[in-house]
Amino acid sequence: MKLEQGNKYIITTKEEQNEGTFINETDKHIYIKLKSGYNIGIDKTKVETIKKISEKPTRTEMKTEKEIQQKNKNLPNITILHTGGTIASKVDYTTGAVIAKFTEKELVELFPELTKIANIDSKLVRNMQSEMIRFAHYNLLAKAAKDEAEKGADGIIITHGTDTLPQTSAALSFALENIGIPLILVGSQRSSDRPSSDASLNLISAAKFIANTDYSGVAICMHEDINDKTCLILPGLKTKKMHTSKRDAFKPINTKPIASINADTGKTEFRSNYIKKDKHKKITLKLFNEKIKIGLLEAHPQMYAEEIDNYKKFDGLVIKLLGLGHLPTMQIDEYTEENEKILKSIKELTKTIPVVASPQTICGRINMNIYTPGKQLIEAGVIGNYTDIHPETAFIKLAWLLSNYKKEEIKNLYETNLRGEITERIEED
Amino acid sequence: MKLEQGNKYIITTKEEQNEGTFINETDKHIYIKLKSGYNIGIDKTKVETIKKISEKPTRTEMKTEKEIQQKNKNLPNITILHTGGTIASKVDYTTGAVIAKFTEKELVELFPELTKIANIDSKLVRNMQSEMIRFAHYNLLAKAAKDEAEKGADGIIITHGTDTLPQTSAALSFALENIGIPLILVGSQRSSDRPSSDASLNLISAAKFIANTDYSGVAICMHEDINDKTCLILPGLKTKKMHTSKRDAFKPINTKPIASINADTGKTEFRSNYIKKDKHKKITLKLFNEKIKIGLLEAHPQMYAEEIDNYKKFDGLVIKLLGLGHLPTMQIDEYTEENEKILKSIKELTKTIPVVASPQTICGRINMNIYTPGKQLIEAGVIGNYTDIHPETAFIKLAWLLSNYKKEEIKNLYETNLRGEITERIEED
Repeated sequence: MKLEQGNKYIITTKEEQNEGTFINETDKHIYIKLKSGYNIGIDKTKVETIKKISEKPTRTEMKTEKEIQQKNKNLPNITILHTGGTIASKVDYTTGAVIAKFTEKELVELFPELTKIANIDSKLVRNMQSEMIRFAHYNLLAKAAKDEAEKGADGIIITHGTDTLPQTSAALSFALENIGIPLILVGSQRSSDRPSSDASLNLISAAKFIANTDYSGVAICMHEDINDKTCLILPGLKTKKMHTSKRDAFKPINTKPIASINADTGKTEFRSNYIKKDKHKKITLKLFNEKIKIGLLEAHPQMYAEEIDNYKKFDGLVIKLLGLGHLPTMQIDEYTEENEKILKSIKELTKTIPVVASPQTICGRINMNIYTPGKQLIEAGVIGNYTDIHPETAFIKLAWLLSNYKKEEIKNLYETNLRGEITERIEED
Repeated sequence: MKLEQGNKYIITTKEEQNEGTFINETDKHIYIKLKSGYNIGIDKTKVETIKKISEKPTRTEMKTEKEIQQKNKNLPNITILHTGGTIASKVDYTTGAVIAKFTEKELVELFPELTKIANIDSKLVRNMQSEMIRFAHYNLLAKAAKDEAEKGADGIIITHGTDTLPQTSAALSFALENIGIPLILVGSQRSSDRPSSDASLNLISAAKFIANTDYSGVAICMHEDINDKTCLILPGLKTKKMHTSKRDAFKPINTKPIASINADTGKTEFRSNYIKKDKHKKITLKLFNEKIKIGLLEAHPQMYAEEIDNYKKFDGLVIKLLGLGHLPTMQIDEYTEENEKILKSIKELTKTIPVVASPQTICGRINMNIYTPGKQLIEAGVIGNYTDIHPETAFIKLAWLLSNYKKEEIKNLYETNLRGEITERIEED
């Protein structure tokens, strides 16, 4: 049988039966998109029967643009703000081809399920690969999100590349003060030429989460595991990308996920407390200084003082400290003269710019009061004792504080939980 | 009852009964050391009965130095090399007091169980807190380990601070070429003034693992979880400290643990393949250049080219890249002019020093062939495509390669699995 892109088939092998829309084929595999949005490759040598069950919808069968624009008053209004990234190049529902830019109509065609969940408004903010993003882009996104909230959106979804998605999420958490609606960032880890696109599941889950719950605030919606059934709603300020390629790469750091959601049934389970939706809240924008220079330095064995000195002309520095919050700062023998120079350099640096401590272990809390090297850093003016802000969020928080507050306020504000970035300290055993 | 340090008691509360050696007490808690070596604090308000079961052993009841020195020919010979760190300040069996330096006799007194496992020889290499360690110390340790192997040790244990334990483990994995016996690094996360010392469990487990198995090579022995029952034997080159304070902070990266061991029963379960012990093997030392300067830079949003340029005078640089292996290298709009400067700086830098890619996601493999920014870095001469070497080991491997090989050999050697630092690449779906 000649398979045609866009037609639906049931393909049966010895082991299983799959129903889906034909995408394309190679010598060895047939690729179809399942109802879940997940693409699978079926080994041709194992195929027993292929049955066509429906033709690609023709133009007239699709809703007209006018119909789409008519809002269903029973459904919430969700705005999808696009920024490009892998998710933008893999969500063609019928052909698997790359689409670089969405219009509202195209999007509804690609994910017809969305129209059943919400009235969708869709806008391209700007095509920006996430690894290229600078602070100016956070401001573009924050302004766009505020506009949509003010126009009455019940929720916002931002599609985003995954490389720096947690940093954008942290940036928007700080920039959008007093947000009363949900703003959910979604990405996808797999490009469209691979049989396991995760875009659809993440996007549909985010939409259902917004439609079915009263959550408000910035969060991330990504795969819970590799089973393509559930997504996690992850805290906007406490999530890290922990794997280069896996679909479930995004993990909550020092806290639990906010919720899990089954993309198919929409069933949501909350796992943390959250702030409830309140559309009367008015967002205050606190944007980023687009010219600011923040360094990010990781402590390591055999450090040299010049690694600290290099940041003299920066506006701030995050140091990923060793252990509970240490640097090589003590001369212990004939090999460690350099260590004392490092301490001197830190003392010099904190005179002019804020230097913030974050754990290079990623997980856990900085505690510079336990050992002498930690105490030396407190004395040297390093900020961040008792915080459990992982490095990506530490970097964004410092940049945002320096963009909006006076130098003398930084220490206190950095060490205070402003938006959920610091969890409560519990005396550990 | 007046409790005396060193005496053994059974303390009964409503919920449980605990037997152990009294350490000290506060207004609220009584601290005892259990048989497992674990210290617990018991809420005084809950105590129902306290029963003394034995007095502190007197000097004469303890083995004499001479007895200890007589080797039991049925037991293996284990050398414990000490380096200080938390583990050295918390292992007093009777009083919980700080002991900074060990002699063989003191050690056997502290952990009498050790003499049943092996003939223990114990040496202080040098007191060095792990956060202060430089490459010169790796050479001291490698030489000491080689000496012990040549004197006939069946296994070596190194006690070490936890902050840079995985880096030392990686350094010794490279420096001790062709090691035929087990070399196990142990640390402890909790200092002696806290009720949960993990030193004993880690040390006893390491000794039993050496005594009960035919494993050879460098590995780490630390808590599997917070239950104080089992330890993991972790691969020397693929382990990261993932938490500032938890006892089970050490996690294998991109691979499985080598084995688990129950400290009490000694029962060992291997979870990975390993190289078997062969005492006839002769170690070749390949030491570190003690003056070498290696940088470690983490990519982030809003990078500046000078962050790259700062490493011009270094001997090598590890960059923790974004995602699959990306840097902000492309101008995509009016805000991203700096990105092209970054690419230019990378190209400049690779002309003079090796620049190595490692994933800032910690887990996963670098693949710079998928997206354009990755391809740009390959073209710019960045080393490390398809490797899954996490940053700590990447840093040590680059330093060691530069210490022992010619510049033109670095790329090929870095991308080749030399000691188990790169796992086999499996085509992912």
